[in-house]
Amino acid sequence: MALKRNIESIVVNGASMFLPSVSVDCVIFGFHDNEMKVLLLQMKHTDEYGLPGGFVLKDEALDAAATRVLQERTGLTDIFLQQFATFGEPKRSDKKFHLKAMKKEGITIDKNNWLLQRFITVGYYALVDFSKVIPKIDELSIGCSWFHLQNVPTLMMDHNLILNKALETMQQQINHQPIGYNLLPQKFTMPELQKLYEAILNKKLDRRNFQRKILVYGILKKLKEVKQGVAHKAPFLYSFDIKKYNQALKNGYTGGW
Amino acid sequence: MALKRNIESIVVNGASMFLPSVSVDCVIFGFHDNEMKVLLLQMKHTDEYGLPGGFVLKDEALDAAATRVLQERTGLTDIFLQQFATFGEPKRSDKKFHLKAMKKEGITIDKNNWLLQRFITVGYYALVDFSKVIPKIDELSIGCSWFHLQNVPTLMMDHNLILNKALETMQQQINHQPIGYNLLPQKFTMPELQKLYEAILNKKLDRRNFQRKILVYGILKKLKEVKQGVAHKAPFLYSFDIKKYNQALKNGYTGGW
Repeated sequence: MALKRNIESIVVNGASMFLPSVSVDCVIFGFHDNEMKVLLLQMKHTDEYGLPGGFVLKDEALDAAATRVLQERTGLTDIFLQQFATFGEPKRSDKKFHLKAMKKEGITIDKNNWLLQRFITVGYYALVDFSKVIPKIDELSIGCSWFHLQNVPTLMMDHNLILNKALETMQQQINHQPIGYNLLPQKFTMPELQKLYEAILNKKLDRRNFQRKILVYGILKKLKEVKQGVAHKAPFLYSFDIKKYNQALKNGYTGGW
Repeated sequence: MALKRNIESIVVNGASMFLPSVSVDCVIFGFHDNEMKVLLLQMKHTDEYGLPGGFVLKDEALDAAATRVLQERTGLTDIFLQQFATFGEPKRSDKKFHLKAMKKEGITIDKNNWLLQRFITVGYYALVDFSKVIPKIDELSIGCSWFHLQNVPTLMMDHNLILNKALETMQQQINHQPIGYNLLPQKFTMPELQKLYEAILNKKLDRRNFQRKILVYGILKKLKEVKQGVAHKAPFLYSFDIKKYNQALKNGYTGGW
Protein backbone atom coordinates (compact mmCIF):
# COMPACT_ATOMS: atom_id res chain seq x y z
CA MET A 1 0.00 0.00 0.00
CA ALA A 2 2.87 2.35 0.71
CA LEU A 3 4.09 1.74 -2.81
CA LYS A 4 0.68 2.40 -4.29
CA ARG A 5 0.49 5.65 -2.31
CA ASN A 6 3.90 6.63 -3.72
CA ILE A 7 2.82 6.11 -7.31
CA GLU A 8 -0.53 7.74 -6.67
CA SER A 9 1.25 10.76 -5.26
CA ILE A 10 3.39 11.07 -8.42
CA VAL A 11 0.28 10.88 -10.61
CA VAL A 12 -1.64 13.43 -8.55
CA ASN A 13 1.12 15.80 -7.48
CA GLY A 14 3.63 15.33 -10.32
CA ALA A 15 2.36 18.34 -12.24
CA SER A 16 3.21 20.64 -9.34
CA MET A 17 6.47 18.87 -8.41
CA PHE A 18 8.16 18.32 -11.77
CA LEU A 19 9.13 20.32 -14.84
CA PRO A 20 6.60 19.37 -17.54
CA SER A 21 7.69 17.62 -20.80
CA VAL A 22 11.21 16.79 -19.59
CA SER A 23 12.75 13.56 -18.31
CA VAL A 24 16.26 12.17 -17.91
CA ASP A 25 17.42 8.67 -18.81
CA CYS A 26 20.67 7.13 -17.62
CA VAL A 27 22.86 4.61 -19.42
CA ILE A 28 24.91 3.11 -16.62
CA PHE A 29 27.97 1.17 -17.79
CA GLY A 30 30.08 -1.17 -15.69
CA PHE A 31 33.01 -3.46 -16.54
CA HIS A 32 33.03 -7.01 -15.21
CA ASP A 33 34.52 -10.33 -16.37
CA ASN A 34 36.15 -8.50 -19.29
CA GLU A 35 32.71 -7.43 -20.54
CA MET A 36 31.00 -4.06 -20.70
CA LYS A 37 27.64 -4.26 -19.00
CA VAL A 38 24.68 -1.92 -18.74
CA LEU A 39 22.18 -1.61 -15.89
CA LEU A 40 18.57 -2.19 -16.94
CA LEU A 41 15.23 -2.20 -15.16
CA GLN A 42 12.58 -4.81 -15.72
CA MET A 43 9.18 -3.14 -15.66
CA LYS A 44 6.56 -4.39 -13.27
CA HIS A 45 3.45 -4.54 -15.39
CA THR A 46 4.66 -4.97 -18.93
CA ASP A 47 7.75 -7.15 -18.41
CA GLU A 48 9.57 -4.80 -20.77
CA TYR A 49 13.11 -3.69 -20.02
CA GLY A 50 14.19 -0.07 -19.90
CA LEU A 51 16.85 2.39 -18.84
CA PRO A 52 16.69 3.90 -15.35
CA GLY A 53 15.15 7.34 -15.64
CA GLY A 54 13.17 9.99 -13.86
CA PHE A 55 11.74 13.47 -13.86
CA VAL A 56 13.25 16.85 -13.09
CA LEU A 57 12.09 18.71 -9.98
CA LYS A 58 10.82 22.23 -10.60
CA ASP A 59 13.93 23.86 -9.19
CA GLU A 60 16.45 21.09 -9.87
CA ALA A 61 19.26 21.32 -12.43
CA LEU A 62 19.13 18.72 -15.21
CA ASP A 63 22.51 17.30 -14.15
CA ALA A 64 21.31 17.06 -10.56
CA ALA A 65 18.23 15.10 -11.63
CA ALA A 66 20.42 12.59 -13.49
CA THR A 67 22.74 12.30 -10.47
CA ARG A 68 19.73 11.65 -8.24
CA VAL A 69 18.43 8.87 -10.52
CA LEU A 70 21.88 7.26 -10.59
CA GLN A 71 22.23 7.43 -6.87
CA GLU A 72 18.78 5.91 -6.35
CA ARG A 73 19.47 2.97 -8.70
CA THR A 74 23.12 2.25 -7.81
CA GLY A 75 23.66 3.51 -4.27
CA LEU A 76 26.71 5.40 -5.56
CA THR A 77 27.47 9.05 -5.03
CA ASP A 78 30.31 10.87 -6.78
CA ILE A 79 30.28 9.11 -10.14
CA PHE A 80 31.41 10.00 -13.64
CA LEU A 81 28.31 11.23 -15.42
CA GLN A 82 28.01 12.88 -18.79
CA GLN A 83 25.14 14.26 -20.81
CA PHE A 84 25.40 13.00 -24.37
CA ALA A 85 22.19 13.74 -26.31
CA THR A 86 18.55 14.79 -26.04
CA PHE A 87 15.82 12.77 -27.70
CA GLY A 88 12.81 14.69 -28.94
CA GLU A 89 10.77 12.79 -31.48
CA PRO A 90 7.09 13.55 -30.84
CA LYS A 91 6.11 9.88 -30.99
CA ARG A 92 8.76 8.67 -28.53
CA SER A 93 6.50 9.03 -25.46
CA ASP A 94 4.54 5.97 -24.53
CA LYS A 95 1.17 6.69 -22.99
CA LYS A 96 0.26 3.03 -23.09
CA PHE A 97 2.95 2.00 -20.63
CA HIS A 98 1.68 4.38 -17.96
CA LEU A 99 -1.99 3.67 -18.67
CA LYS A 100 -1.39 -0.06 -18.33
CA ALA A 101 0.78 0.27 -15.23
CA MET A 102 -1.69 2.55 -13.45
CA LYS A 103 -4.62 0.31 -14.32
CA LYS A 104 -2.79 -2.69 -12.84
CA GLU A 105 -1.89 -0.67 -9.75
CA GLY A 106 -5.57 0.24 -9.41
CA ILE A 107 -4.82 3.95 -9.77
CA THR A 108 -7.15 6.25 -11.69
CA ILE A 109 -5.36 8.49 -14.14
CA ASP A 110 -6.99 11.21 -16.19
CA LYS A 111 -6.15 11.25 -19.89
CA ASN A 112 -4.90 14.83 -19.49
CA ASN A 113 -2.60 13.89 -16.61
CA TRP A 114 0.92 15.36 -16.93
CA LEU A 115 2.42 11.86 -17.01
CA LEU A 116 0.62 11.05 -20.27
CA GLN A 117 1.86 14.09 -22.17
CA ARG A 118 4.77 14.19 -24.58
CA PHE A 119 8.24 14.09 -22.99
CA ILE A 120 11.65 14.86 -24.38
CA THR A 121 14.41 13.03 -22.56
CA VAL A 122 17.97 14.08 -21.84
CA GLY A 123 20.39 11.16 -22.01
CA TYR A 124 23.28 10.80 -19.55
CA TYR A 125 25.85 8.08 -19.40
CA ALA A 126 27.69 6.97 -16.31
CA LEU A 127 30.78 4.83 -15.81
CA VAL A 128 30.68 3.02 -12.50
CA ASP A 129 32.69 0.54 -10.49
CA PHE A 130 30.69 -2.65 -11.03
CA SER A 131 31.75 -4.16 -7.71
CA LYS A 132 30.42 -1.22 -5.69
CA VAL A 133 26.93 -1.07 -7.17
CA ILE A 134 23.92 -2.41 -5.29
CA PRO A 135 21.18 -2.28 -7.96
CA LYS A 136 17.83 -1.11 -6.63
CA ILE A 137 14.43 -1.21 -8.34
CA ASP A 138 12.13 1.81 -8.56
CA GLU A 139 8.35 2.01 -7.97
CA LEU A 140 7.43 0.63 -11.36
CA SER A 141 10.02 -2.12 -11.79
CA ILE A 142 10.54 -5.64 -10.49
CA GLY A 143 14.17 -6.05 -11.46
CA CYS A 144 17.34 -3.99 -11.79
CA SER A 145 20.31 -5.90 -13.14
CA TRP A 146 23.33 -5.93 -15.41
CA PHE A 147 23.24 -7.03 -19.06
CA HIS A 148 26.20 -7.76 -21.33
CA LEU A 149 26.24 -5.23 -24.16
CA GLN A 150 26.14 -8.13 -26.61
CA ASN A 151 23.02 -9.39 -24.93
CA VAL A 152 20.73 -6.39 -24.49
CA PRO A 153 17.02 -7.21 -24.97
CA THR A 154 14.58 -5.07 -26.93
CA LEU A 155 13.92 -2.09 -24.67
CA MET A 156 10.79 0.00 -24.17
CA MET A 157 10.18 3.20 -26.14
CA ASP A 158 13.38 4.53 -27.82
CA HIS A 159 15.70 3.15 -25.13
CA ASN A 160 17.72 0.97 -27.52
CA LEU A 161 18.41 4.09 -29.59
CA ILE A 162 19.47 5.98 -26.45
CA LEU A 163 21.77 3.14 -25.35
CA ASN A 164 23.37 2.89 -28.80
CA LYS A 165 23.96 6.62 -28.95
CA ALA A 166 25.66 6.51 -25.53
CA LEU A 167 27.92 3.72 -26.70
CA GLU A 168 28.74 5.55 -29.93
CA THR A 169 29.64 8.68 -27.95
CA MET A 170 31.95 6.68 -25.71
CA GLN A 171 33.59 5.03 -28.73
CA GLN A 172 34.32 8.45 -30.21
CA GLN A 173 35.58 9.91 -26.94
CA ILE A 174 38.00 7.06 -26.34
CA ASN A 175 39.97 8.37 -29.35
CA HIS A 176 40.85 11.64 -27.69
CA GLN A 177 40.27 11.11 -23.97
CA PRO A 178 41.40 8.49 -21.47
CA ILE A 179 38.83 6.09 -20.10
CA GLY A 180 38.87 3.53 -17.32
CA TYR A 181 39.37 5.35 -14.03
CA ASN A 182 35.79 4.72 -12.95
CA LEU A 183 35.55 1.28 -14.50
CA LEU A 184 38.67 -0.56 -13.32
CA PRO A 185 39.89 -1.43 -9.83
CA GLN A 186 42.64 0.83 -8.49
CA LYS A 187 45.37 -1.55 -9.65
CA PHE A 188 45.09 -3.39 -12.95
CA THR A 189 47.25 -5.16 -15.49
CA MET A 190 47.93 -4.03 -19.04
CA PRO A 191 45.86 -6.95 -20.43
CA GLU A 192 42.92 -5.90 -18.22
CA LEU A 193 43.09 -2.32 -19.53
CA GLN A 194 43.31 -3.62 -23.09
CA LYS A 195 40.23 -5.83 -22.52
CA LEU A 196 38.33 -2.74 -21.38
CA TYR A 197 39.25 -0.84 -24.55
CA GLU A 198 38.36 -3.86 -26.65
CA ALA A 199 35.00 -4.21 -24.91
CA ILE A 200 34.14 -0.56 -25.53
CA LEU A 201 35.35 -0.53 -29.13
CA ASN A 202 33.94 -4.01 -29.75
CA LYS A 203 37.07 -5.08 -31.61
CA LYS A 204 40.38 -6.83 -30.95
CA LEU A 205 43.47 -4.63 -30.59
CA ASP A 206 47.06 -5.60 -31.22
CA ARG A 207 48.78 -6.16 -27.87
CA ARG A 208 52.04 -4.37 -28.65
CA ASN A 209 50.43 -1.43 -30.43
CA PHE A 210 48.00 -0.97 -27.56
CA GLN A 211 50.77 -0.95 -24.96
CA ARG A 212 52.90 1.48 -26.97
CA LYS A 213 50.06 3.94 -27.59
CA ILE A 214 48.59 3.90 -24.10
CA LEU A 215 52.02 4.48 -22.54
CA VAL A 216 52.67 7.48 -24.81
CA TYR A 217 49.71 9.29 -23.19
CA GLY A 218 51.55 9.29 -19.87
CA ILE A 219 48.42 8.57 -17.85
CA LEU A 220 49.67 5.30 -16.31
CA LYS A 221 51.96 4.60 -13.37
CA LYS A 222 53.75 1.25 -13.49
CA LEU A 223 53.77 -0.19 -9.96
CA LYS A 224 56.53 -2.33 -8.48
CA GLU A 225 54.07 -5.13 -7.70
CA VAL A 226 53.02 -7.92 -10.01
CA LYS A 227 49.60 -9.52 -10.14
CA GLN A 228 49.20 -12.13 -7.39
CA GLY A 229 47.95 -15.65 -7.94
CA VAL A 230 49.30 -15.96 -11.45
CA ALA A 231 51.60 -18.97 -11.80
CA HIS A 232 53.71 -18.09 -14.79
CA LYS A 233 55.07 -14.70 -15.92
CA ALA A 234 52.89 -12.65 -13.56
CA PRO A 235 52.02 -9.33 -15.30
CA PHE A 236 52.94 -5.97 -13.73
CA LEU A 237 50.27 -3.89 -12.10
CA TYR A 238 49.49 -0.33 -13.16
CA SER A 239 47.38 2.45 -11.75
CA PHE A 240 46.24 5.72 -13.29
CA ASP A 241 48.32 8.83 -12.63
CA ILE A 242 45.19 10.71 -11.67
CA LYS A 243 46.68 14.19 -12.16
CA LYS A 244 47.80 13.43 -15.70
CA TYR A 245 44.62 11.46 -16.34
CA ASN A 246 42.49 14.47 -15.43
CA GLN A 247 44.68 16.76 -17.53
CA ALA A 248 44.19 14.46 -20.53
CA LEU A 249 40.45 14.35 -19.82
CA LYS A 250 40.37 18.13 -19.91
CA ASN A 251 42.73 18.80 -22.81
CA GLY A 252 42.17 15.69 -24.90
CA TYR A 253 44.84 14.08 -27.02
CA THR A 254 45.34 12.71 -30.47
CA GLY A 255 44.58 9.06 -30.30
CA GLY A 256 42.58 6.70 -32.44
CA TRP A 257 42.34 2.98 -31.87
CA MET B 1 0.02 46.44 -35.08
CA ALA B 2 0.40 43.18 -36.96
CA LEU B 3 3.62 42.59 -35.04
CA LYS B 4 1.95 43.34 -31.70
CA ARG B 5 -0.83 40.90 -32.60
CA ASN B 6 1.81 38.27 -33.41
CA ILE B 7 3.50 38.59 -30.04
CA GLU B 8 0.17 38.81 -28.23
CA SER B 9 -0.88 35.59 -29.90
CA ILE B 10 2.27 33.83 -28.68
CA VAL B 11 1.65 35.05 -25.13
CA VAL B 12 -2.02 34.05 -25.15
CA ASN B 13 -1.93 30.87 -27.24
CA GLY B 14 1.63 29.69 -26.62
CA ALA B 15 0.61 27.30 -23.85
CA SER B 16 -1.64 25.38 -26.23
CA MET B 17 0.73 25.61 -29.22
CA PHE B 18 4.11 24.75 -27.72
CA LEU B 19 5.69 22.05 -25.58
CA PRO B 20 6.12 23.59 -22.10
CA SER B 21 9.59 24.07 -20.53
CA VAL B 22 11.54 23.39 -23.74
CA SER B 23 13.23 25.72 -26.21
CA VAL B 24 15.92 25.41 -28.87
CA ASP B 25 18.83 27.79 -29.46
CA CYS B 26 20.93 27.84 -32.60
CA VAL B 27 24.60 28.72 -32.95
CA ILE B 28 24.93 29.57 -36.65
CA PHE B 29 28.51 29.67 -37.90
CA GLY B 30 29.70 31.11 -41.20
CA PHE B 31 33.17 31.63 -42.68
CA HIS B 32 34.01 34.95 -44.34
CA ASP B 33 37.17 36.98 -44.88
CA ASN B 34 39.18 34.15 -43.28
CA GLU B 35 37.21 34.57 -40.05
CA MET B 36 34.65 32.36 -38.32
CA LYS B 37 31.52 34.38 -37.66
CA VAL B 38 28.36 33.73 -35.68
CA LEU B 39 24.87 35.07 -36.35
CA LEU B 40 23.40 37.05 -33.43
CA LEU B 41 20.15 38.88 -32.80
CA GLN B 42 19.97 42.30 -31.19
CA MET B 43 16.94 42.39 -28.93
CA LYS B 44 14.34 45.09 -29.44
CA HIS B 45 13.67 46.29 -25.93
CA THR B 46 16.79 45.53 -23.96
CA ASP B 47 19.50 46.11 -26.60
CA GLU B 48 21.02 42.82 -25.46
CA TYR B 49 22.38 40.36 -27.99
CA GLY B 50 21.38 36.72 -28.12
CA LEU B 51 21.34 33.53 -30.15
CA PRO B 52 18.44 32.86 -32.51
CA GLY B 53 16.03 30.51 -30.78
CA GLY B 54 12.46 29.40 -30.52
CA PHE B 55 9.93 27.01 -29.08
CA VAL B 56 8.90 23.49 -30.04
CA LEU B 57 5.42 22.92 -31.45
CA LYS B 58 3.34 20.32 -29.59
CA ASP B 59 3.78 17.71 -32.31
CA GLU B 60 7.10 18.86 -33.76
CA ALA B 61 10.39 16.95 -33.41
CA LEU B 62 13.18 18.83 -31.62
CA ASP B 63 15.38 18.70 -34.72
CA ALA B 64 12.53 20.06 -36.84
CA ALA B 65 12.07 22.99 -34.45
CA ALA B 66 15.77 23.87 -34.76
CA THR B 67 15.60 23.57 -38.57
CA ARG B 68 12.59 25.89 -38.59
CA VAL B 69 14.39 28.53 -36.48
CA LEU B 70 17.43 28.33 -38.77
CA GLN B 71 15.32 28.67 -41.87
CA GLU B 72 13.44 31.65 -40.46
CA ARG B 73 16.65 33.51 -39.54
CA THR B 74 18.84 32.62 -42.54
CA GLY B 75 16.46 31.88 -45.41
CA LEU B 76 18.37 28.61 -45.94
CA THR B 77 16.86 25.15 -46.20
CA ASP B 78 18.95 21.98 -46.24
CA ILE B 79 21.78 22.96 -43.91
CA PHE B 80 24.21 21.08 -41.71
CA LEU B 81 22.70 21.11 -38.24
CA GLN B 82 23.80 19.25 -35.16
CA GLN B 83 22.52 19.03 -31.62
CA PHE B 84 25.42 19.43 -29.21
CA ALA B 85 24.14 19.92 -25.63
CA THR B 86 21.12 20.72 -23.48
CA PHE B 87 21.26 23.44 -20.87
CA GLY B 88 19.18 22.95 -17.77
CA GLU B 89 20.26 25.12 -14.88
CA PRO B 90 17.11 26.25 -13.03
CA LYS B 91 18.25 29.89 -12.95
CA ARG B 92 19.05 30.13 -16.67
CA SER B 93 15.56 31.36 -17.61
CA ASP B 94 15.10 35.09 -17.66
CA LYS B 95 11.63 36.25 -16.71
CA LYS B 96 12.76 39.86 -16.70
CA PHE B 97 13.51 39.94 -20.42
CA HIS B 98 9.98 38.88 -21.33
CA LEU B 99 8.34 41.06 -18.69
CA LYS B 100 10.23 44.12 -19.94
CA ALA B 101 9.62 43.34 -23.60
CA MET B 102 5.89 42.77 -23.11
CA LYS B 103 5.52 45.93 -21.06
CA LYS B 104 7.19 47.95 -23.81
CA GLU B 105 4.98 46.28 -26.43
CA GLY B 106 1.94 47.23 -24.34
CA ILE B 107 0.99 43.58 -23.87
CA THR B 108 -0.43 42.32 -20.58
CA ILE B 109 1.20 39.13 -19.36
CA ASP B 110 0.13 37.17 -16.32
CA LYS B 111 2.89 36.12 -13.94
CA ASN B 112 1.85 32.50 -14.42
CA ASN B 113 2.04 32.75 -18.21
CA TRP B 114 3.88 29.80 -19.82
CA LEU B 115 6.49 32.16 -21.27
CA LEU B 116 7.65 33.15 -17.78
CA GLN B 117 8.23 29.60 -16.53
CA ARG B 118 11.53 27.77 -16.39
CA PHE B 119 12.89 26.55 -19.75
CA ILE B 120 15.60 24.09 -20.59
CA THR B 121 17.12 24.71 -23.99
CA VAL B 122 18.54 22.29 -26.52
CA GLY B 123 21.57 23.72 -28.34
CA TYR B 124 22.12 23.12 -32.06
CA TYR B 125 24.96 24.34 -34.19
CA ALA B 126 24.79 24.98 -37.90
CA LEU B 127 27.48 25.54 -40.50
CA VAL B 128 26.24 27.70 -43.35
CA ASP B 129 27.49 29.29 -46.54
CA PHE B 130 27.96 32.90 -45.45
CA SER B 131 27.35 34.29 -48.93
CA LYS B 132 23.91 32.68 -49.20
CA VAL B 133 22.46 33.88 -45.90
CA ILE B 134 19.98 36.74 -45.78
CA PRO B 135 19.73 37.43 -42.02
CA LYS B 136 16.20 38.17 -40.84
CA ILE B 137 15.07 39.52 -37.48
CA ASP B 138 12.30 37.91 -35.40
CA GLU B 139 9.40 39.56 -33.55
CA LEU B 140 11.48 40.63 -30.59
CA SER B 141 14.70 41.77 -32.26
CA ILE B 142 15.85 44.81 -34.20
CA GLY B 143 19.01 43.35 -35.69
CA CYS B 144 20.33 40.04 -37.00
CA SER B 145 23.95 40.14 -38.07
CA TRP B 146 27.32 38.38 -38.14
CA PHE B 147 29.96 38.79 -35.43
CA HIS B 148 33.57 37.69 -35.57
CA LEU B 149 34.16 34.99 -32.96
CA GLN B 150 36.89 37.17 -31.50
CA ASN B 151 34.43 39.99 -31.12
CA VAL B 152 31.29 38.48 -29.58
CA PRO B 153 29.54 40.82 -27.09
CA THR B 154 28.14 39.73 -23.72
CA LEU B 155 25.00 37.81 -24.59
CA MET B 156 21.69 37.50 -22.73
CA MET B 157 21.03 34.63 -20.29
CA ASP B 158 23.53 31.75 -20.71
CA HIS B 159 24.03 32.32 -24.43
CA ASN B 160 27.80 32.91 -24.14
CA LEU B 161 28.07 29.53 -22.43
CA ILE B 162 26.00 27.92 -25.20
CA LEU B 163 28.14 29.53 -27.91
CA ASN B 164 31.38 28.44 -26.25
CA LYS B 165 30.16 24.89 -25.86
CA ALA B 166 29.25 24.78 -29.56
CA LEU B 167 32.71 25.99 -30.49
CA GLU B 168 34.37 23.48 -28.17
CA THR B 169 32.31 20.67 -29.72
CA MET B 170 33.39 21.73 -33.20
CA GLN B 171 37.04 21.93 -32.12
CA GLN B 172 36.85 18.37 -30.82
CA GLN B 173 35.03 17.04 -33.88
CA ILE B 174 37.54 18.52 -36.30
CA ASN B 175 40.05 15.98 -34.91
CA HIS B 176 38.12 13.01 -36.18
CA GLN B 177 35.74 14.34 -38.82
CA PRO B 178 36.17 16.53 -41.91
CA ILE B 179 34.75 20.02 -41.85
CA GLY B 180 34.26 22.69 -44.46
CA TYR B 181 31.77 21.44 -47.02
CA ASN B 182 29.07 23.79 -45.81
CA LEU B 183 31.43 26.66 -45.03
CA LEU B 184 33.59 27.04 -48.12
CA PRO B 185 32.67 27.82 -51.73
CA GLN B 186 32.61 24.82 -54.08
CA LYS B 187 36.19 25.44 -55.23
CA PHE B 188 38.83 26.63 -52.81
CA THR B 189 42.59 26.78 -52.42
CA MET B 190 44.65 24.88 -49.86
CA PRO B 191 45.49 28.15 -48.03
CA GLU B 192 41.76 28.94 -47.78
CA LEU B 193 41.02 25.53 -46.27
CA GLN B 194 43.91 25.97 -43.85
CA LYS B 195 42.56 29.39 -42.80
CA LEU B 196 39.23 27.75 -42.01
CA TYR B 197 40.88 25.14 -39.78
CA GLU B 198 42.95 27.84 -38.11
CA ALA B 199 39.86 29.99 -37.50
CA ILE B 200 38.00 27.09 -35.89
CA LEU B 201 40.96 25.91 -33.81
CA ASN B 202 42.00 29.49 -33.06
CA LYS B 203 45.67 28.67 -33.68
CA LYS B 204 48.23 28.79 -36.49
CA LEU B 205 49.01 25.53 -38.26
CA ASP B 206 52.19 24.63 -40.12
CA ARG B 207 51.53 24.89 -43.87
CA ARG B 208 53.31 21.71 -44.93
CA ASN B 209 51.98 19.57 -42.07
CA PHE B 210 48.46 20.76 -42.76
CA GLN B 211 48.67 19.90 -46.44
CA ARG B 212 50.18 16.48 -45.76
CA LYS B 213 47.58 15.52 -43.15
CA ILE B 214 44.52 16.80 -44.99
CA LEU B 215 45.56 14.98 -48.18
CA VAL B 216 45.96 11.69 -46.29
CA TYR B 217 42.24 11.76 -45.44
CA GLY B 218 41.44 11.45 -49.15
CA ILE B 219 38.49 13.85 -48.96
CA LEU B 220 39.87 16.39 -51.47
CA LYS B 221 39.91 16.45 -55.27
CA LYS B 222 42.68 18.53 -56.83
CA LEU B 223 41.23 20.36 -59.83
CA LYS B 224 43.10 21.23 -63.01
CA GLU B 225 42.32 24.93 -62.60
CA VAL B 226 44.31 27.46 -60.64
CA LYS B 227 42.88 30.38 -58.72
CA GLN B 228 42.16 33.31 -61.08
CA GLY B 229 43.30 36.86 -60.51
CA VAL B 230 46.43 35.92 -58.62
CA ALA B 231 49.52 37.45 -60.24
CA HIS B 232 52.31 35.20 -59.06
CA LYS B 233 52.30 31.44 -58.41
CA ALA B 234 48.53 31.04 -58.59
CA PRO B 235 47.50 28.25 -56.17
CA PHE B 236 45.61 25.17 -57.37
CA LEU B 237 41.93 24.84 -56.67
CA TYR B 238 40.43 21.91 -54.76
CA SER B 239 36.93 20.68 -54.11
CA PHE B 240 35.62 18.09 -51.69
CA ASP B 241 35.15 14.53 -52.92
CA ILE B 242 31.67 14.48 -51.46
CA LYS B 243 31.35 10.70 -51.39
CA LYS B 244 34.57 10.25 -49.44
CA TYR B 245 33.79 13.32 -47.34
CA ASN B 246 30.47 11.81 -46.26
CA GLN B 247 32.12 8.48 -45.56
CA ALA B 248 34.67 10.20 -43.32
CA LEU B 249 31.87 12.14 -41.63
CA LYS B 250 30.15 8.85 -40.87
CA ASN B 251 33.13 6.71 -39.92
CA GLY B 252 35.45 9.32 -38.48
CA TYR B 253 39.21 9.15 -38.73
CA THR B 254 42.24 9.54 -36.54
CA GLY B 255 43.29 13.12 -36.83
CA GLY B 256 44.40 15.70 -34.36
CA TRP B 257 45.58 19.17 -35.31
